[in-house]
Amino acid sequence: MAKLILIRHGQSQWNLENRFTGWTDVPLTPLGEDEALRAGKALVKEGIVFDAAFTSLLSRAIKTLHILQEACSSCWIKENRSWRLNERHYGALQGLNKDETAEKYGAKQVKIWRRSYDVCPPALNKDDKRNPRFDIKYKNIDPRALPLGESLKDAIFRVIPYWQDNIAPVLLSGRNALVVAHGNSLRGLIKYLEGISDDAIANLEIPTGEPIIYDLDKSLNAVKSYKLQI
Amino acid sequence: MAKLILIRHGQSQWNLENRFTGWTDVPLTPLGEDEALRAGKALVKEGIVFDAAFTSLLSRAIKTLHILQEACSSCWIKENRSWRLNERHYGALQGLNKDETAEKYGAKQVKIWRRSYDVCPPALNKDDKRNPRFDIKYKNIDPRALPLGESLKDAIFRVIPYWQDNIAPVLLSGRNALVVAHGNSLRGLIKYLEGISDDAIANLEIPTGEPIIYDLDKSLNAVKSYKLQI
Repeated sequence: MAKLILIRHGQSQWNLENRFTGWTDVPLTPLGEDEALRAGKALVKEGIVFDAAFTSLLSRAIKTLHILQEACSSCWIKENRSWRLNERHYGALQGLNKDETAEKYGAKQVKIWRRSYDVCPPALNKDDKRNPRFDIKYKNIDPRALPLGESLKDAIFRVIPYWQDNIAPVLLSGRNALVVAHGNSLRGLIKYLEGISDDAIANLEIPTGEPIIYDLDKSLNAVKSYKLQI
Repeated sequence: MAKLILIRHGQSQWNLENRFTGWTDVPLTPLGEDEALRAGKALVKEGIVFDAAFTSLLSRAIKTLHILQEACSSCWIKENRSWRLNERHYGALQGLNKDETAEKYGAKQVKIWRRSYDVCPPALNKDDKRNPRFDIKYKNIDPRALPLGESLKDAIFRVIPYWQDNIAPVLLSGRNALVVAHGNSLRGLIKYLEGISDDAIANLEIPTGEPIIYDLDKSLNAVKSYKLQI
């Protein structure tokens, strides 16, 4: 039996400012750093260790992992990072304040963008400087794989291959895996693990910094899941 | 032409306390953290970027790398970690104050332990709790490879295979490599690169936190080397 630990990064600057973030590489707030520290201490208190760590290419998740690892005295554990664990790409909405966007496009439209399963946000123009192809982080990624905007479904569909190829093998070998990621990439993993419906998944709220623990059997079915208070 | 950047971790708690450290996993001091930050800023100011990062399994080097990467906005760059980049293992001297050790064993003997090329420190007893085989960090390393005490020569001989197999290929492909490591593992790399004699290498002083830059030709010969002030 292996344990899977899922953690959404601590509060980011744009969580605080209520802006659509997506692939924008914003830092943690001091509260976010503290959440990461408390998440690490909660794992220590619960006696939960991990053998491999997975995160995205975005600083807020990487920093959360680093703070947490320091709190767990586990800096030496290998970090695996992939764009596939990045947040959903929010296209042309990235950077906009959510309330202002609601005033401009109507609350109903914003709710559709935020809480539907397969509706894409307005796409970035390919020459937009926010296009991931202009970001050095993604220089070794097939340009066709880089999104200009994603529905939740799009994001989930690029997360699952990473789970299957990289995270699942660790768990199948009986080792524990920690995934520090984002609201929507974690929704993808939870949907897949728990078989949550397309309609229900977008409304699943995942608090920042709160470890979610799954005890998985040999077929990677969840036999138990619980959250740790931080 | 590729650049190699070598950095010794910032000041650690046992640097400050003048104790033999070796594989003991002590944290950075606040000064050490500041050195790491300044090293990162010095790279940014000089316009030096790196494509791959290498470090040891010891927290003081890993933390130095993390702070530096944050200062360079390069958190996303892959970190490669190996016990082969660890500090020289100081055997039974680990934890002892250097001055007290000189009082006990004589300054001459301590100088031999510290500044000879192929003299080993007193070895750890194999049941000593400081034996690396009791440390979870090394659980996946061949127990025969784990030292109970190393001469500088021993340390260099286990560093070079890592250079050859992991760091050199990055540089040969024209990419820049950053290595954040320790006084003696860096001595090994510098000895190898610059062809420094066995007699001279132990006296090469490498200041903490100060980036050493090598411009390497296609055969990995150093055509230029310089240090950045921090």
